[in-house]
Amino acid sequence: MARVAVAGASGYAGGELLRLLLAHPDVEIGALTAGGSAGTRLGAHQPHLLPLADRVLEDTTAEMLTGHDVVFLALPHGKSAELAAQLGDDAVVIDCGADHRLADPAAWERWYGGTHAGSWPYGLPELPGARDSLRGAKRVAVPGCYPTAVSLAMAPALAAGIAEPEVVVTAVTGTSGAGKSLKPHLLGAEVMGSLSAYGVGGVHRHTPEMAQNLSAAAGAPVTVSFTPVLAPLPRGILATCTARTSVTAAEAVEVYAKAYADEPFVHLLPEGSWPATASTLGANTVQLQVTVDPDAGRLVVVAAIDNLTKGTAGGAIQCMNLALGLAETAGLPVTGVAP
Amino acid sequence: MARVAVAGASGYAGGELLRLLLAHPDVEIGALTAGGSAGTRLGAHQPHLLPLADRVLEDTTAEMLTGHDVVFLALPHGKSAELAAQLGDDAVVIDCGADHRLADPAAWERWYGGTHAGSWPYGLPELPGARDSLRGAKRVAVPGCYPTAVSLAMAPALAAGIAEPEVVVTAVTGTSGAGKSLKPHLLGAEVMGSLSAYGVGGVHRHTPEMAQNLSAAAGAPVTVSFTPVLAPLPRGILATCTARTSVTAAEAVEVYAKAYADEPFVHLLPEGSWPATASTLGANTVQLQVTVDPDAGRLVVVAAIDNLTKGTAGGAIQCMNLALGLAETAGLPVTGVAP
Amino acid sequence: MARVAVAGASGYAGGELLRLLLAHPDVEIGALTAGGSAGTRLGAHQPHLLPLADRVLEDTTAEMLTGHDVVFLALPHGKSAELAAQLGDDAVVIDCGADHRLADPAAWERWYGGTHAGSWPYGLPELPGARDSLRGAKRVAVPGCYPTAVSLAMAPALAAGIAEPEVVVTAVTGTSGAGKSLKPHLLGAEVMGSLSAYGVGGVHRHTPEMAQNLSAAAGAPVTVSFTPVLAPLPRGILATCTARTSVTAAEAVEVYAKAYADEPFVHLLPEGSWPATASTLGANTVQLQVTVDPDAGRLVVVAAIDNLTKGTAGGAIQCMNLALGLAETAGLPVTGVAP
Amino acid sequence: MARVAVAGASGYAGGELLRLLLAHPDVEIGALTAGGSAGTRLGAHQPHLLPLADRVLEDTTAEMLTGHDVVFLALPHGKSAELAAQLGDDAVVIDCGADHRLADPAAWERWYGGTHAGSWPYGLPELPGARDSLRGAKRVAVPGCYPTAVSLAMAPALAAGIAEPEVVVTAVTGTSGAGKSLKPHLLGAEVMGSLSAYGVGGVHRHTPEMAQNLSAAAGAPVTVSFTPVLAPLPRGILATCTARTSVTAAEAVEVYAKAYADEPFVHLLPEGSWPATASTLGANTVQLQVTVDPDAGRLVVVAAIDNLTKGTAGGAIQCMNLALGLAETAGLPVTGVAP
Repeated sequence: MARVAVAGASGYAGGELLRLLLAHPDVEIGALTAGGSAGTRLGAHQPHLLPLADRVLEDTTAEMLTGHDVVFLALPHGKSAELAAQLGDDAVVIDCGADHRLADPAAWERWYGGTHAGSWPYGLPELPGARDSLRGAKRVAVPGCYPTAVSLAMAPALAAGIAEPEVVVTAVTGTSGAGKSLKPHLLGAEVMGSLSAYGVGGVHRHTPEMAQNLSAAAGAPVTVSFTPVLAPLPRGILATCTARTSVTAAEAVEVYAKAYADEPFVHLLPEGSWPATASTLGANTVQLQVTVDPDAGRLVVVAAIDNLTKGTAGGAIQCMNLALGLAETAGLPVTGVAP
Repeated sequence: MARVAVAGASGYAGGELLRLLLAHPDVEIGALTAGGSAGTRLGAHQPHLLPLADRVLEDTTAEMLTGHDVVFLALPHGKSAELAAQLGDDAVVIDCGADHRLADPAAWERWYGGTHAGSWPYGLPELPGARDSLRGAKRVAVPGCYPTAVSLAMAPALAAGIAEPEVVVTAVTGTSGAGKSLKPHLLGAEVMGSLSAYGVGGVHRHTPEMAQNLSAAAGAPVTVSFTPVLAPLPRGILATCTARTSVTAAEAVEVYAKAYADEPFVHLLPEGSWPATASTLGANTVQLQVTVDPDAGRLVVVAAIDNLTKGTAGGAIQCMNLALGLAETAGLPVTGVAP
Repeated sequence: MARVAVAGASGYAGGELLRLLLAHPDVEIGALTAGGSAGTRLGAHQPHLLPLADRVLEDTTAEMLTGHDVVFLALPHGKSAELAAQLGDDAVVIDCGADHRLADPAAWERWYGGTHAGSWPYGLPELPGARDSLRGAKRVAVPGCYPTAVSLAMAPALAAGIAEPEVVVTAVTGTSGAGKSLKPHLLGAEVMGSLSAYGVGGVHRHTPEMAQNLSAAAGAPVTVSFTPVLAPLPRGILATCTARTSVTAAEAVEVYAKAYADEPFVHLLPEGSWPATASTLGANTVQLQVTVDPDAGRLVVVAAIDNLTKGTAGGAIQCMNLALGLAETAGLPVTGVAP
Repeated sequence: MARVAVAGASGYAGGELLRLLLAHPDVEIGALTAGGSAGTRLGAHQPHLLPLADRVLEDTTAEMLTGHDVVFLALPHGKSAELAAQLGDDAVVIDCGADHRLADPAAWERWYGGTHAGSWPYGLPELPGARDSLRGAKRVAVPGCYPTAVSLAMAPALAAGIAEPEVVVTAVTGTSGAGKSLKPHLLGAEVMGSLSAYGVGGVHRHTPEMAQNLSAAAGAPVTVSFTPVLAPLPRGILATCTARTSVTAAEAVEVYAKAYADEPFVHLLPEGSWPATASTLGANTVQLQVTVDPDAGRLVVVAAIDNLTKGTAGGAIQCMNLALGLAETAGLPVTGVAP
C-alpha cells in the first residue's frame, strides 16, 4: 500500500483526487492539507467524501507532506516548485498545477510570469513517447484540462501528417474548471441559462501547452487558435478541433483507430456516434470521434472528457500508477455516471 | 392594427411569436393553427401565454389563414410553399421555416431534397443590402438561427476583406433549437449535465445558408466549417467564428464598429467584454465581440443571440415591421431577462 | 413621466427593477446608485441592460437620491430606514428590503436584531385590504419573495375558514434569491446538479412575515412550518403549501376562483394543470392551483412565481403604479419567457 | 461469481444497474434484454457503459433470462409477475418495478388496477426487521425511489413515537425518475429553468407505499400528504418530511443517531449541515438531517438520495448482496460524484 498525501484537499481537484483514491485498491490516504481552510473539517468543504468527513485539514507545509510515498499537489500556480524541492527524491510528487508543464522558459515567462521552475515528465501517457518517461518517475506534471482533451484529439493527425499545422479549437467547459473561485461570473445564477466566451484571442494560459504538445507530435511548429466557452454544467469538456486536411474521413478514422487501439482510456466511437461529456462523468475516459468535411477541406475531431477526472485527478492517478509500477488502470473508472 | 395569424402555434417558434406579438403595439392576433394539436387549447401547449390560454387551435389550412394582413408560418420544412401560394398576394407571408432561404436550387436539392420552392427576400436586415428588399415585401424567408448568428458575426469582416474566405465555426446552442421533437437525446435527463456535438463535418443543413450569406458579403465563394454543440440550457446560441487575417485587433474592431454603428439590435461590446447568451434572453439583441489572435494569425468573432428571439421569432417580427412600414424596432425588446 | 431612482442598481433586485422600468411607459430613469460598485459602469454588472450600459453608478446617498418622484431601495436590511428619513415626504419610497415589513417590533428584534424601524404599507395588493393602503402611499414595504408566493397561496383558504391554522410549506427556489453573494455554496459548480435544504426548522427570516400575513387573513394566529430548498435554476419559486381541511377539492377551488377573480396577476389554473415557474419567468404573474387530498385530509396549494419579478421588482413596480395613481398593470408583463 | 441478467437494460434503471454491476467484485454480467430496443447495441442507448457497448440486446423472455443466479427486472409495472413465475425458484429475482411492493391487494387495485401479483420481501434493509427477510431471499421487491427517501426519513421518529401519524412530504426530484419516456414535459427545453408540481393531492402511486412502510414502523395507521416536484437536474431526490412533535431537536437527533448508528449507507449529518443531493450522486448513500421547529411544533427531517442509485439500482444490488450472502456493501460506492 502506498501512502499518499493531498495538498489542496479542500478544492475541486483535491476533492476528485480523494474520491478516486478512496476507491483505489493500492493506496492509503495520509495527510490532507489546505491553505486558508486549514484547521477545518474536510466534510465542511467536500460533503460527498463521507468516509473522510471528520478528517481535519492541516497546513500545507513540507513537514506535513513528508513521509508519504506519493504527494499530490493541487495548488495555485507558483506554489509547487519550492514545496517539491523540500520533499526529497524518495517521494513521488505529482503536480496538478501548471508550474512544470511548459518546457520552454520563455513561454513560461510570457504566459505566467516569474521564474520558470523547470519542466517535469508530462503526465499524458497517451502522447507519443510519454508513457516511458512516466514509468518510475519521481516527478510528474499533470496536464491542464483543456490540453488533455485537445492534445489527444489532434496529436494522431499531426503525427501522421494528415492535418496542416494550424489548428482551430473551440472547447466548451463546465464551471468546475475555474475552481472554487468566488467570482461573480461563476455564481450559479449567472452560469445557469447562459453560454459565454472568455480568454478569447489566444490569451488563455492553456494555449502554449497545447502548442507545445501538438508541435512535438507534428515534429514542427503548430499554431493553435483556442477559444474556451463556459456552459451551464458542473463538469465536462467538449473540444471541437479542426485543421485543413486532404485525406478522406475513412483515412482519418484509420489513423485514429490505430493510434488508440491499445489505450484503455481513449475510446474512438463507432461511426455515427459523437462524444457526449455525460458519458465520461466521473470516469477517466476520453471519447473521440473524427470526420472530414470535404466542402471545407477540414478534419474535424471532437473529444469529450470530465475535466476533473481525466482532465485532472484521474490523469494524475494514472500517472501515479505508472510511477509506482502499478497497473495503469488501477482504481480508475471507465464508465461515466449517466444520465 | 394589422391582423396576424400564426400557423404552428403549438411549437417553440410559434410560442415565441405569440409572446412577442402580445406585446406589439400595432397588431391584433387572429387565427392560431396547428397540425396534430388542432382542436386543443393553446394553454395546454404554451402555459406561459396566459392571455391566449383558452384559444382553441384550428387546423393549418389556407382557409383558416386567409383574411389576415400577416401570416407567420412556423412549420416543418416542405410545408410552406404550397400554403403560401394559396394565400394570395395581399397578405404578408413570413416563413420561419427553411423552404425559401436558399437561392440555389441545386443547394436546396442537395441539402433538403425535393423540388426547390424558390427563394424569398432573406430576412436578415443587417446584412448588406437586405433591408431595402424587406421594406414592403409580401414574402419573407426568416433565416435559420445559426445562420443569423454566424452571418452577422462574419459578414463585416468578409465584406471589408479583412478575413480569408475559409471560416471555421463552432456554435453552442440550447435545446429549444431542436423544437419540441420527442427524441431521447433531447430529454432533460440526457441534456442536463452534458455537452455533445452533432451534425459534425459539414452535414448540418444550416451550413449552405451560412456559405450563401458569407459568399454574398465577400463577393466570392466562402467555405464554412460548421460544428454545432448541444448544451444544457433552453435558449441561446454562442457562435465562435474564426478566419485567417492579417489585420490587428484594433483594425478589426473598427470594421465592426462601423458596420453596426446604426443597427438597433446588434451591439458590439466594449473592449474586454465578451458576449453571454443570458444577456440576450427573450430579446432581439445580438451581442458581438471581435479580436485577433496574433500567434495563430486569426480573427475571432463571438456572437450571442437567443435562438428563439433574434434567431427566429424576433427576427421574423422585425421583418414584419419592415414589410408593413412600421418602426423596425416596434414590439421588440432589447434587454435580456437576466440573471 | 415620473422620475425614478434605484439604489442598489448593481444587484439582482436592482437589475430587475431597471429591466422593467426601461419598458414602463410612464417613467424615466434617474439616478442609479450602488455601494462598493459606485464609480463603475452599470454594464459591467448588468450586461443585459444594454440601453443603460454606459451609465456610471453613483454612491448611495440621500443627496444622490433626492429630487426623484420615486426611489426604489434595493439594499441589505438595516440600511433603508435612515436613508428614507432623509428623502422627505414628497418622494414615494419603495423598499425592496426587509426593514419595514414586520409590524411587530418584537418579531423584528427576534429575527433581525437591532431596533425596529417601524412598518410601512405592505406591498402585496392582492391581500385582503392591502390595495387601498397602497393607493397614493408615500412609503411601501415590498414583501419578501417567499412570503409573496406563500401568502397568496394560503390567504384565501384561511380567510374563508377552510384551512386549519397550522400551515406546512416547502418552497423550492432558484439561486438568484440569495443575491449576488460570493459564497461557495452559490457557485455554479455547487448548485447545478444538486438540491439542498437550508434554513430548516423555522429559522428562515421570511417565516414571521408569512405568519404575520396569514394570521391577518385568518383573523387568528397561524403557525407556518417553512422549509426552503435550493434548486438549480436562476429564477423561480415553487411553493407547496398544505393545511388540514374538511372541504372538498371543488369547494376549495371555488374559494380561490372567487378570491382572485378580478386580480390581473394571479391566475388560478384550469383543472388538471399545475404551476410551473418557467411560465412566469420575467413576468409579474402568480400561477396557482389547489386541491384536497382526502386520504390525508389536507388542502394542497401550489404557487409559482418569478422571485425577482412578482417576488421583488415586479411587485415593487405594481406598488409604484398604485402609489402614483397609474394603471396597476402598467409596464408589467404577464406572459413568461418560456421555454 | 454470480451470473446476473438484466431485463430492461436500455432504460435508466437498467443502465444504473449495469454501471454498478460492472464494478462489483462478485458478479459477471450475463444476458441483457429489452423490449422495443431488442436487437440493437447497448452502446446506442447507454453510451457511458463503454465495456458493454457492443453487447446486443436480446428480447425480454423467460428463456433468455433462465440460467442466471440473479435476474434483475427493470420493467414497466405489470410485467414482472408472469416472467418471475417462469424463472423457477433457483434464481434470485429482484424486481425494480412496482408489482410486488404493496402487501394489500386492495391498495394495489386502487392505485395500479388489475390483479395483485402478491408481495415479495421489501428491499429496504434499513427498515425495522427488513434485513432479516432479505438474507437468502429468492424474490425481492425493490422500493420506489420516493418511498426509499421518505421511509428512511420518517420511520425512526414514528417507531420511537416522537412524531404524530400525519406526515407531510414535499419531495423534489430530478427528471430521470420519470424514465426515458418521450413526453413533452420531460424535454430538456421544458425542464431546464423550471420547477413544477405534479401528482398533487395524494394521487402519486408512491403514496400508498410510503403509508404502508410508515404505518408498519409506527404500528398504527399513518397518513402521508405527498407532493412531488420536478426540478432541473438529472438525478437526485430531496425529501422534506414533517410531522407534529413534542420533543426537542436534541431528542430527535438522538433517536436518529441511534436508529442509524450501524447503517453503512445512512448518514446522519453533523449539526448544522443539511443534505444535498450532489453529495450522493452515483452513490448508495442517504444523507439525513433532523430538527424541530418549536414555533410550529413540528419535526422536520430532510433526506437526500440519488434516485437511480440508492433509490433504485444501488438499493437493488444491496438486496442482491443480502440474498446471495455477500457483504452487504460489496460493489456499492458511498462517495458521491461532486461537484
